[in-house]
Formats: sequence, structure tokens, C-alpha cells
Amino acid sequence: MPINHIIVLDNRPEGEATVNNFKLITAPTPELQEGQVLVKHHYLSLDPYMRGRMSAAKNYAQPQPLNEVMIGGTVGEVLESKHPKFSPGQTVQCMGGWQAYSVINANTPGALKRVNAEEISISHYLGAVGMPGVTAWYGLNKIIQAKAGMTVTVSAASGAVGSAYGALAKARGCKVVGIAGGRAKCDYVVKELGFDACVDYKEHTDYIALSKALKEACPNGIDGHFENVGGMVLDAVMLRANDFARIAVCGMIAGYNGEPLPMTNPTLILKSRMAIEGFIVSEHMEVWPEALAELTALVASGQLKPRESVAQGLEAAPEAFIGLLKGHNFGKQLVKLI
Amino acid sequence: MPINHIIVLDNRPEGEATVNNFKLITAPTPELQEGQVLVKHHYLSLDPYMRGRMSAAKNYAQPQPLNEVMIGGTVGEVLESKHPKFSPGQTVQCMGGWQAYSVINANTPGALKRVNAEEISISHYLGAVGMPGVTAWYGLNKIIQAKAGMTVTVSAASGAVGSAYGALAKARGCKVVGIAGGRAKCDYVVKELGFDACVDYKEHTDYIALSKALKEACPNGIDGHFENVGGMVLDAVMLRANDFARIAVCGMIAGYNGEPLPMTNPTLILKSRMAIEGFIVSEHMEVWPEALAELTALVASGQLKPRESVAQGLEAAPEAFIGLLKGHNFGKQLVKLI
Repeated sequence: MPINHIIVLDNRPEGEATVNNFKLITAPTPELQEGQVLVKHHYLSLDPYMRGRMSAAKNYAQPQPLNEVMIGGTVGEVLESKHPKFSPGQTVQCMGGWQAYSVINANTPGALKRVNAEEISISHYLGAVGMPGVTAWYGLNKIIQAKAGMTVTVSAASGAVGSAYGALAKARGCKVVGIAGGRAKCDYVVKELGFDACVDYKEHTDYIALSKALKEACPNGIDGHFENVGGMVLDAVMLRANDFARIAVCGMIAGYNGEPLPMTNPTLILKSRMAIEGFIVSEHMEVWPEALAELTALVASGQLKPRESVAQGLEAAPEAFIGLLKGHNFGKQLVKLI
Repeated sequence: MPINHIIVLDNRPEGEATVNNFKLITAPTPELQEGQVLVKHHYLSLDPYMRGRMSAAKNYAQPQPLNEVMIGGTVGEVLESKHPKFSPGQTVQCMGGWQAYSVINANTPGALKRVNAEEISISHYLGAVGMPGVTAWYGLNKIIQAKAGMTVTVSAASGAVGSAYGALAKARGCKVVGIAGGRAKCDYVVKELGFDACVDYKEHTDYIALSKALKEACPNGIDGHFENVGGMVLDAVMLRANDFARIAVCGMIAGYNGEPLPMTNPTLILKSRMAIEGFIVSEHMEVWPEALAELTALVASGQLKPRESVAQGLEAAPEAFIGLLKGHNFGKQLVKLI
């Protein structure tokens, strides 16, 4: 069995997460038991939710245990199999974690899934045609309840969730306006992803100013919003929200470091009769088949052109992850492990 | 025609509303035109929403115009009628405003409604069997989606909305816990209204302390909450909210004076996958018949015993209204005009 390289959580962040919270170790991969499959990872996905797991505080999921492999989605190939449904060479997806190889109990429902490596690049199963894509789909359809003619917005628009959201919203006949950090990202959101407009939040120092920029981009107000960030962005959007606006809350990335991140004007929830709802997509598995079918078609047809930031090698994962939390990535953040 | 006594909005509040924002004037009541009815008001309802109308700022309704009669719900008797469906002596309900008499165009749908003065006291049509009662009904059923076994909470529990909410929640088999200001109100909420418990927010100086008291009263957490107040109370409830908790936002009374009233931990919306929704009951007229039927039955059977604070005489209305905003009332705040 090959020697495995593994990144574990060494200690929990006090304030901002840093690369020193992680530790790279090596260990032999264990012998396979009946029903198990050895997977060689090609790509590891880095996602904001991992920051929440690094803290011991109350969250919707169990904290990441110390000295164990960091949780993470992966795609790769079967190297060895003791399960009748899997054989070497097959392309598969699993929650393999931040490591070169994983041993998966293939009898656990949903633990190991074959994916089609021909129609689209396998890395997209970690992004547009994976959890981030379905996340966008759920928020847009089930919470925002998007319909043709609505103006909908999304923060972190150039990211994996945001780009899928834009393509899905356009397919529904919405006007879609992104919010992103920096001119380059905003240009990409409009020119490559096909959003109607994109507002650069870094050009504005407070939510009032950002809100004015949103008013120019959304002269008819905002009917639905998908929140990946929170803080000043959410405050600005709420000020421009139309009556009966619906807001899907998927991320509060700016609050992960534990600093207070209040909502400035909750009274607007009442004044505009808004609905605000938080969700995590793994609790809504019933929508995945429908969502993935639509997302696969959008990628295959070129209507959704997901961009990826690819860090090379497992040892680059911590720095790439810290960069993701600071918005340094451009599109879906991956680590290439081969 | 009788001489009318009218309270108008003389000037808009800067900060807190005061009695000096209002002015009492007299004027003759106009001659009736065809289709009009002259109503002599017996009771005027005072409600927190009026504070929102006093400001010129964006709100869900038009601001109250200066130098015009203050808006308000009334019950009374028909004095004269030029409409075939109404005749003198009938008991009616209308939005008659802060004045002794009103002239109502009875052809406007919903403008004038006959009420039954035999089964229950007519003042209840301004409270438990009126807008406040239906407000409680809508929030509990349509937003919180209350079911047997849930723990549900309400702020301003001793008020008109809160008392109806408690009776409705008990009828559904919920555990219902109130939040109110002062020992007398809390005792009333438990002993007279039949809540399972009531937490006195005035005993706590911050939301953390209030949250601990809520934990004792709601050891299984909070599944649904009806918010009449906002601020520290909402912060405390959110900290105790269970996964998938639903919060109906009906009032943010603490924010009406324009001071910033942030939500301290909006990240909890995501962590607990909460749904928070604002509403005003006049936009949901389709539920009124069903809601009023249930509320009438609860009052007639004694399961809902609404308490009233009654100020005497139109000239007492401004002070009673300011008291309402400060929580000095005990139960539904009315002004008796006869």
C-alpha cells in the first residue's frame, strides 16, 4: 500500500485562521477490508465551510477533530477495490479529505460515487456540478423562488457558488447582478459569466456607499439575494430590497473569525416584509439529482463556464485555504494532488 | 350634524414621540353624501404601528399626513346613514381615526363592517377578535407553522397580540413561553392567560443574561418565535433557537425612534438554518375569516380572556399612546370615547 500524505488540524484558530493551524504528516495507507476501496485523489476542494469546522463553537456540524485529516471533497481514481461495484481505473468522487489517498467504505450510502470523466472535466464535480452548484440551485429555486423578470443578486459572485447562480438565474430569465471584490473579478463576472452587472464592494468603505452602487446596478430594486458573505454586503442589499424580497443565507464568511458581525438594520425585515432563511445543502439531498442534471447541461453547453483557482500539491492546501477565506481565489478553489 | 373632536399629527417626532406631536382640534362633521354613513365612535384602538406612520421615512405604509386625523381602528354605532345596508343604532367597525365621529364611504369594500354586540364586548373587535388577534394567528400558523409539541415564544406577551398568541398556541398543543416586562405582567401571562412560563426581560441587563433565563424556561430550546419588540429580546431568542426555528417578525417597537437597533448575531441564521420573516396582517386578508372564527370561539368560551387598558376620552389618547410605546399598558390599549 502507498505511503499517504495527510494534512491534519493541529490546533484551533484564535481569531484568524493561519497556515500554522495545520500540520502535514505521513502514514501508511491501511490494508483494505471487505467493502473498502482505495482512492487516489486527483483534486481536493477547498470551501469556506471548513473554517466553521475548525472552531470548537456551536455550529451546524461537528467540529473538525484535532489531529485527524481535515474534511474535504475529492475526485480521483480507484486504485484498489474490495467492493464488487468498483474496480481500478474508475473515476470517483468522495469526501476523501486533505490527503493523497483515502480508504472509503463503499457500502456506506453516498460515500463513493462514480462520475463521468468524458463530458466535462472531473474537477467540475467539486464545483459547478457538485456541492457549490447545487447550493446555488437550492438557494435560487427553493428559498428565493426566482421567476422571470426578477432582479436577483449574489455576493462572492465570481466564486463557485456565484458563477453557477448566475448561469441558473439567466436561464430563468432573471436580471442577475453580482457583488465581488476587485475590478478583475467584476469584469470576469460580467464578461465571462454573463451577469448583467457586478458591483465591486472594495470600492466602498461602508454599506451606505455600497448600497448606492447597488441602486445604480438594480434600478428596480432587489427581489432575491443569495448571501455568501454577510456583514456590510448584506446590510447594503437589505437597504435596496424590494417588498417581499427573499434572502438565502448560505455563508457568513466575514464572521467566521468570531468577531461580532451585526446586522445593522433588522427593522427592514419588517418594513419590507422580507424572508431570510439559512440553509446547508447537504440537508436537502432530495434536490440533488434534478439540480445536477441542470448544472451538467449548463456546463456541457458552455452556458456555465466555471473558472478554477488550482493550487499545486497537498502542501499548498493550507495557504490556498487561507487565501480563499481572504477572497484571493478567483473561481472555484481546488488543490491538484497529482 | 354634531361638532367633531379630532386629534391630528401636528409635527413629526425627532427621536422619541411625545404628546406634543399631536394637536386636538374641533370641526363640524360634514353633511352626508349618498353612500356615506356617520359613525359615533365608542372605542379607539391604539397600536404600535402608528409610531411608524408618524415618521416620514420609508415604511410599508404611507406616512401619516400632517394636520390630518391620526389613523386608527374604531368601533361604534351608526348615527345616520345614506347607505341602504346601514341604519342608525347598528354596531360597526371601521378605520375611523382618532376622533369622536367619522364619515365613512360604505361602498368602499371593507370600509365599514357590522359586528355582533351580543356574544362578546364590542371592544374586543379592536383586539383579540380584530387585527391583533389575526396578527397572532397569521404569525403562529403561516410563518411559525406551529405544531403540537413545539416550544414557541412571544415578546410583549401580555399585550393584545401576545395574549391571543398564547391561547392559540395552547389550543394547538404547543408549549408557549412569554417574554414581558415586569413581574405583574409575567404573573398575569402565566396565571390569567395560561402560558407555561413567562420571562421578565426587565430583570436582565443584556441579551446573554436574558438568554440564560430563556434556557431555563425552554429547556428543549425554541422552535418558533413571534417578535413584537426586537433588539435584546430577539438577540436572546436567537441564541436559544433550535435548528430550523422559524421567527415571525411583526414588530420592532424598540427601533421606531430611529436609533440603530442591530441584530447581534445574524450568523445564527445560518448556523441554526433559521427562517425569519416579516409580515403585516392587512396584506393577508384571505386568512381573516378563518382566524376570526377561531378567535371568536376562544373568547366566547373563556379560553382567551383579553385584558384591556382603557384611557377615558379622546384628549387622553396621546398620553396613552406614548405609554403604549413605553410598555405602560397592560393588555390591549383602548381609548373610550363615550
